[in-house]
Amino acid sequence: MAPAGDNSPMSDDTLLLALDYGGTKLSAAALPLAALRTADRRLSPHRHYSPPDAAAAYEQAAMLDLARMLLDGRPPAAVGVSFGGPVDFTTGTVRLSHHVAGWEATPLADLLAAVFDAPVAVDNDANVAALGEYRFGAGTGLDSLLYVTISTGVGAGWILDGRPWRGHDGMAGELGHTVVDPAGPLCLCGKRGCVERLASGPYMVQDAIERLAADPAAGPTLRTMAAASGELDGRQVAEAAAAGDSIARDVLLRGARALGVGLGNAANLVNPQRIILGGGVTKSGPLWWGAVRAAARATALPELSLDIVPATWEDDAPLWGALALATDRLNVGL
Amino acid sequence: MAPAGDNSPMSDDTLLLALDYGGTKLSAAALPLAALRTADRRLSPHRHYSPPDAAAAYEQAAMLDLARMLLDGRPPAAVGVSFGGPVDFTTGTVRLSHHVAGWEATPLADLLAAVFDAPVAVDNDANVAALGEYRFGAGTGLDSLLYVTISTGVGAGWILDGRPWRGHDGMAGELGHTVVDPAGPLCLCGKRGCVERLASGPYMVQDAIERLAADPAAGPTLRTMAAASGELDGRQVAEAAAAGDSIARDVLLRGARALGVGLGNAANLVNPQRIILGGGVTKSGPLWWGAVRAAARATALPELSLDIVPATWEDDAPLWGALALATDRLNVGL
Repeated sequence: MAPAGDNSPMSDDTLLLALDYGGTKLSAAALPLAALRTADRRLSPHRHYSPPDAAAAYEQAAMLDLARMLLDGRPPAAVGVSFGGPVDFTTGTVRLSHHVAGWEATPLADLLAAVFDAPVAVDNDANVAALGEYRFGAGTGLDSLLYVTISTGVGAGWILDGRPWRGHDGMAGELGHTVVDPAGPLCLCGKRGCVERLASGPYMVQDAIERLAADPAAGPTLRTMAAASGELDGRQVAEAAAAGDSIARDVLLRGARALGVGLGNAANLVNPQRIILGGGVTKSGPLWWGAVRAAARATALPELSLDIVPATWEDDAPLWGALALATDRLNVGL
Repeated sequence: MAPAGDNSPMSDDTLLLALDYGGTKLSAAALPLAALRTADRRLSPHRHYSPPDAAAAYEQAAMLDLARMLLDGRPPAAVGVSFGGPVDFTTGTVRLSHHVAGWEATPLADLLAAVFDAPVAVDNDANVAALGEYRFGAGTGLDSLLYVTISTGVGAGWILDGRPWRGHDGMAGELGHTVVDPAGPLCLCGKRGCVERLASGPYMVQDAIERLAADPAAGPTLRTMAAASGELDGRQVAEAAAAGDSIARDVLLRGARALGVGLGNAANLVNPQRIILGGGVTKSGPLWWGAVRAAARATALPELSLDIVPATWEDDAPLWGALALATDRLNVGL
């Protein structure tokens, strides 16, 4: 499984396979090298949504089906993989999934290498998405960046000096579990005032529901939305906040400010050239973006440049990063 | 001023000069390469304490006197410099000093290169101390570390993947101005609840004095110390805390916990192999160390290894780091 050297016969047709195991959402794309070398880059990923109770064995089989359909008999020269959970990058072994049972200690790179007879690289989704934005998106040409995804959780990946920084235990980028308010609400991790507890979509929804119940006169817009749909999601909180709903506004701004303090702290510590934000919560509109940027700017020292931008690739950043991992396994330049 | 190549005539006698501009304390050491290659490493630094109102011109002249005395006519093959303030490492230009007037935009590397006719490298003290501990102290052989000095301020330097990480603007390592309590006391930087505001020596003393004034019945041990000496310093706060004084204990533990949360946050973000603590406040005893470690462990995710140790070199870490910078300018291995 040694990576192919510089002398391998590479052509524009050399095929790369990218796989993204994103919780219960599986995505795959296959692209020839030529498609990475053009300025107008496009992916047409195939997707599979697993049932909520799917376990690792189901996901592995479903992903292989997806990949075989895409490849249609053509052999991939290398495979890059994004996995939604902790991974030992060196060996390509999945440590576990927090969402899907049965992934414990799965040698995913070895399994896939045996199936596709090609070199395979596996890393966790935040690192891979950071790489995707660095090589093909909002981070192109920079020396360093922090990529942060804010959706059901808050995860982050570093590019430092042009390479992914994974940390000593492969655990770098846990921005979501940095503490920004020791008197804040309790997070699932056991601490109070983590960025994720305040800024992630599901927690903001939970906070909004609790505040609607606590104060029956407040939040009329949000209340009407909840009554109409029978439940609330993060998009509705953002819409109600934009419409001036007091509870939605409070919750959204509290989350945005907590994230901003976390980003400002990260900037003070590591001083990356750019911070790139992706994930569903980043679609919450200018109110949210303004509060994130203001809190980050107020937290970072004035001597630090601070450049906070939206991700280019949204949900597909992990697939682009997986393609970058695959090219690295081939030692080809782009 | 190009660095000497591998073919330069280097011998064990090759002389390295290390200079440390530490606020109003100037230190210098000159060592032959051989002294760096032994296991039993020693420095015998010469020091000069400038008067409180000394400006940059005075410090430059005093440091040259110190260096010439040390060298006694022998030419140094390279010069490494630690500066207590922001530095542009690439050009060796001091941006300013927060403690000594007149350092703005001083091309220190060029000035020293002209005097000593040797290659010169200049970096800020936290980065240089991190390098000193990495090459010759508590960080030897590691892949990554965070060095933190806790004294009149709280500064930090990174070694990532075996090299100093300085950040895009050369501002990485500002752990002291990460926010750990948005409802905390006001810091000189304008924010509330910075690590430095809670954990640095002078701020802890200020907090202790305010609490003694606010509650005339509390803190008897600390009150007696203050009355006897006419003032308080950080060492006295630590001593009184160890003796069970309620105010001293509260202040010291609050500082230790704030630092611990800041370190835990840094570990979550970057996951270094080891965290090394130096500076006067680290001599506050087991009460302080226990609280720092406990808060850091509670803040860092359980999957992260956390190894927090005292610095080997205390006040001399910057000089050891300056020697490492000098050897790097010569491209010699150690």
